[in-house]
Amino acid sequence: MTAGFGSRSQSATGATEPFADRLAALVEARHSQIALGLDPDPAALWPAVHETSADGDPAELTAAAVARHCRAVIEAAGAACVAVKLQLACFERLGAAGWAALAETAEAARGHDLLVIADGKRGDVPVTARAYAQALIGKTPGPFGSVAGLGADAFTANPLLGRDSLEPLVTAARECGAGCFSLVRTSNPGAADVQDLVAAEGPVHEALARLVDDFGADLLGASGLSGAGAVTGATRPEHLRRLRELMPRAIFLLPGVGAQGGRVDDLAAAFTPHPAAGLVAASRSIVDAHAGGGAEPAAAAAAAAHELRRATWRLATG
Amino acid sequence: MTAGFGSRSQSATGATEPFADRLAALVEARHSQIALGLDPDPAALWPAVHETSADGDPAELTAAAVARHCRAVIEAAGAACVAVKLQLACFERLGAAGWAALAETAEAARGHDLLVIADGKRGDVPVTARAYAQALIGKTPGPFGSVAGLGADAFTANPLLGRDSLEPLVTAARECGAGCFSLVRTSNPGAADVQDLVAAEGPVHEALARLVDDFGADLLGASGLSGAGAVTGATRPEHLRRLRELMPRAIFLLPGVGAQGGRVDDLAAAFTPHPAAGLVAASRSIVDAHAGGGAEPAAAAAAAAHELRRATWRLATG
Repeated sequence: MTAGFGSRSQSATGATEPFADRLAALVEARHSQIALGLDPDPAALWPAVHETSADGDPAELTAAAVARHCRAVIEAAGAACVAVKLQLACFERLGAAGWAALAETAEAARGHDLLVIADGKRGDVPVTARAYAQALIGKTPGPFGSVAGLGADAFTANPLLGRDSLEPLVTAARECGAGCFSLVRTSNPGAADVQDLVAAEGPVHEALARLVDDFGADLLGASGLSGAGAVTGATRPEHLRRLRELMPRAIFLLPGVGAQGGRVDDLAAAFTPHPAAGLVAASRSIVDAHAGGGAEPAAAAAAAAHELRRATWRLATG
Repeated sequence: MTAGFGSRSQSATGATEPFADRLAALVEARHSQIALGLDPDPAALWPAVHETSADGDPAELTAAAVARHCRAVIEAAGAACVAVKLQLACFERLGAAGWAALAETAEAARGHDLLVIADGKRGDVPVTARAYAQALIGKTPGPFGSVAGLGADAFTANPLLGRDSLEPLVTAARECGAGCFSLVRTSNPGAADVQDLVAAEGPVHEALARLVDDFGADLLGASGLSGAGAVTGATRPEHLRRLRELMPRAIFLLPGVGAQGGRVDDLAAAFTPHPAAGLVAASRSIVDAHAGGGAEPAAAAAAAAHELRRATWRLATG
C-alpha cells in the first residue's frame, strides 16, 4: 500500500482517518465524484491485454489477463476518478487465481491514489459478518500470525439480515477507517419486488435507510459526512430526495448511470449536503466507451471518465 | 470430481439430474438430513492439523491448516451427513490461498459422496448474478478456454434485489442440476428488523417465500421436491408451518440448531412433504463437540453428528 493521498494512513495514536474525510479530500483535490467500476468479463477484455503465448492453466492465464486489463483501465481513466469499485463476482469466478487478480487490482488502484470499494454485497449472521469484515478490510488472527485481508477502503453490504448483521461490519469499519455502503434501493428493475414493499412504517427501502442512518454517528467524519453509506441506484432518481432526508449524512453510492439508463443530471439530491456526498459508479460506460466509435480503448475510456467527471462536478457544485 | 453416488453426473443426453433428486437419494441411503457446516476459524482448528514446521507465508500456512482441518472434520463426521455447507466468508478471509482451500475442501467432500453447498448468500443485479453462478456452479468462457467454477451442488442466495436477481441463478442451477437456497427467514435475532416487516400482502418473509415458490417448477425433481429451496432458521420454528404452506415443494435449509439455540424437535413442519424436504445445518455443535468434555475432536464430532442424524431422521420419518 502506498502512503499517498487518500490511502489508509494511521496517526501516531493508531487512529485511522475516517473514510468519509479521505473521500472528501480526494473529491476536492480531483474535482471528481467518479467511482470507476471494474467488472471484468474475460470475453470482453481490452485487446492489448491478451498475451501471444498462451500456454498454461486457463484460470491463471485468464486471471492474469483480467489483472492486466484492470490495470490498463486504471491507468487510462483513474485520474478522472476518486475510487474504483471492484465487482467481486467477476474475480471470484476465476477461483484462487481470480482472487489474486483482485488483490493485484486493488494494489494498482492504491498506486494511483484511488480508494478501493469492494463490491460484494455481503451480508450474514454476526459471526460470519465479522469474517467478511476480516476478508475485506481487516485481518484474521491465526496460529501462523495474522493474515491480511483485501485492504479495501470501503465495501458494499446487504442489510436483509438486519441490524445485528450490519453491526460487526460497521464496528470493523470504524476500527479500520473504512466505509460501509449498505443496499437501500438498488438500480435493477426487480428491486421493487422486495425493497418497495410498503409496511406500516413506510416502504422497505425507507426502513433500510433508517438502519443506515442509525449507524451514521459511528462512521462520521470531520466533513460532516458519514461512511455509513447507502447504495441508491441512479435509475430511480425519484427516490433520492426522500432517501437524502432520511440519511442526511450518508455518502450515496450511485450505480446505474450509463448502461443501465441512469442520468447524472437526475442525481442532484444526492449532493445537497456536500460535494462528496455522492459517488457516481460507472463501469461499462467508461470501460467500453470505445465500442461504439472505433476509438482506442484507453483514450475512449479517459475521455468518457473525464466527461462524466465534469458533468457530475458541475451538478454537485453548481 | 468423483462419479460417485450423489455427485453431479450427466446423462448421455447432457441432462443433469436435479439437485432435489440427488439429495433425496442420499437422504434415503444414509438416513440422514444433516448438512455439515464448515466455518473454519484459524484460531480454533483441531490441534492435529497444526504442522510443526511453520516457515512461510502466513496466508498459505493458515489456508493449508484450514484445508486439513476441514478434511479431518469431513473424514470424522461426513458419514453421518449428506452435504457440507461451506461458509465462503471463512475461506475468503485468507485471500487467494483461502479460495484454494475452499476448492480443496469441496473436492474432499465430493470424495466422501457429500453434496457441496456454497454458503455465500450472494445477490446482485442480473449481470452480476450470472457471474456469481459462474463462480459457484458454472464456468466462465474466456480467451484461454473456459474456467471452471467451484463446482458446488447448491448455493445460498440473498433475494433482497428481487426476482430478476434470482432468475440468472435459477437458470444456471437448472442447467447444472444445482440447487438455490434463497434466504427467507434467517436464524439471527436481527432478522426481524427487515424480514418481519409487515406489508399489505403480509410479512416480508412471506413475500420472499412466494418468490421462492414461483421458481419451484424450474428446479423440480421426480421426487416432487424442488431445488428452489429456502433458508429458514431453526431458531424461530413458529414460522415453519406457514412457510411450508407457502413453499410446499421447496427444500428447507435449516441453520441455527445447537450453538444458536434451535432444537431439532421443533422442525417437524419442514419435513411434512418428504423426508428430504429439510436439511439441518450444524457446524459448531459438531466441529466443537469435544470442547465441553475433553474427548478427542474426531470422535466427539462423529458422535455428535450421528446423534443429530438419528434425532432428525426420527423426526422426519416418525
